[in-house]
Amino acid sequence: MASLILKRSSPSALKSIVDGLRMGASSSRAYASVAAGTDVVAAAPDVSLQKARSWDEAVSSNFATTPLKDIFKGKKVVIFGLPGAYTGVCSQQHVPSYKNNIDKFKAKGIDSVICVAVNDPYVMNAWAEKLQAKDAIEFYGDFDGSFHKSLDLGKDLSVALLGPRSQRWSAYVEDGKIKKLNVEEAPSDMKVSGADVILGQI
Amino acid sequence: MASLILKRSSPSALKSIVDGLRMGASSSRAYASVAAGTDVVAAAPDVSLQKARSWDEAVSSNFATTPLKDIFKGKKVVIFGLPGAYTGVCSQQHVPSYKNNIDKFKAKGIDSVICVAVNDPYVMNAWAEKLQAKDAIEFYGDFDGSFHKSLDLGKDLSVALLGPRSQRWSAYVEDGKIKKLNVEEAPSDMKVSGADVILGQI
Repeated sequence: MASLILKRSSPSALKSIVDGLRMGASSSRAYASVAAGTDVVAAAPDVSLQKARSWDEAVSSNFATTPLKDIFKGKKVVIFGLPGAYTGVCSQQHVPSYKNNIDKFKAKGIDSVICVAVNDPYVMNAWAEKLQAKDAIEFYGDFDGSFHKSLDLGKDLSVALLGPRSQRWSAYVEDGKIKKLNVEEAPSDMKVSGADVILGQI
Repeated sequence: MASLILKRSSPSALKSIVDGLRMGASSSRAYASVAAGTDVVAAAPDVSLQKARSWDEAVSSNFATTPLKDIFKGKKVVIFGLPGAYTGVCSQQHVPSYKNNIDKFKAKGIDSVICVAVNDPYVMNAWAEKLQAKDAIEFYGDFDGSFHKSLDLGKDLSVALLGPRSQRWSAYVEDGKIKKLNVEEAPSDMKVSGADVILGQI
């Protein structure tokens, strides 16, 4: 639990959030049912994601969405999901861990490194710009949570004033098939879903 | 419909969004059931809002929320709601219209000018900072939409990749009682919910 966010917090607040987020984790299984071998396109045949972009860009695109096959088919993809834009671990550790290692992913032949969260694409876009990560990482919104739900990676984080969001996770996906999947036991953890772990798995 | 966002869009995209958002409006009534005289605290007795703040501040506060009575009781409040942080009309017109008139509200004895949206408090905080509006306006999240639903001001904006959000509206509230309420016919409009209209109603 040695995350920046927790280090910055008071001991009582620290205990509270850890208890709260762990309570969420223990009330459902810590690991999702998807696993290596799952075809993410087949698992969510009607699901699309929404490319992070400004409101004006979305209007110009007639609010177009991106089918999963366009994201995964014929490509080597590293994708990671997190509880929310503008939350602590996500902003301070999770995204930077991928951004700072983007050259290593490219050297391994990865076509896309993708960040996804249960947020709308306008919030994802603003957050990506603030983190100066848009050049390295592709950001997608899963505004209605349907992508995460279809993979059984959804999670209620109302305890943290977020509502229905997702686990913190990462996956290496080849041509739509999950080759490696890492899901944190609690969303406040970043033990297995960072760039260092998945770089060692590819 | 003379909004910046629509002026910037192509004619076909313009028609599409207007049709889409109006379709949403016409499939339910355009005006909410709350009206002048409604006591917002009594209408939503168990509902709280979430003060816009950083994740670290929320952790330090043990994810505290703000009961409606603390916001409204014994105070003169102007409150406006909008479809979402980082969306077009909201960023470019709605918030600025209040921010730029804050001295006029204060001159009329208004204790608080409040912006609320169905977003989490961390997104609301980042957006308020980007708009440089935090000194003038209090921002609150309604992360689960319960405040807007209790007032029958919720609205499904999935057509705009937003999901369950809210109407665009404004109200003048004295000691918890709505004195004036303005709800746009369509969320893409800003005809009746801007600062100029409600300043004339106080």
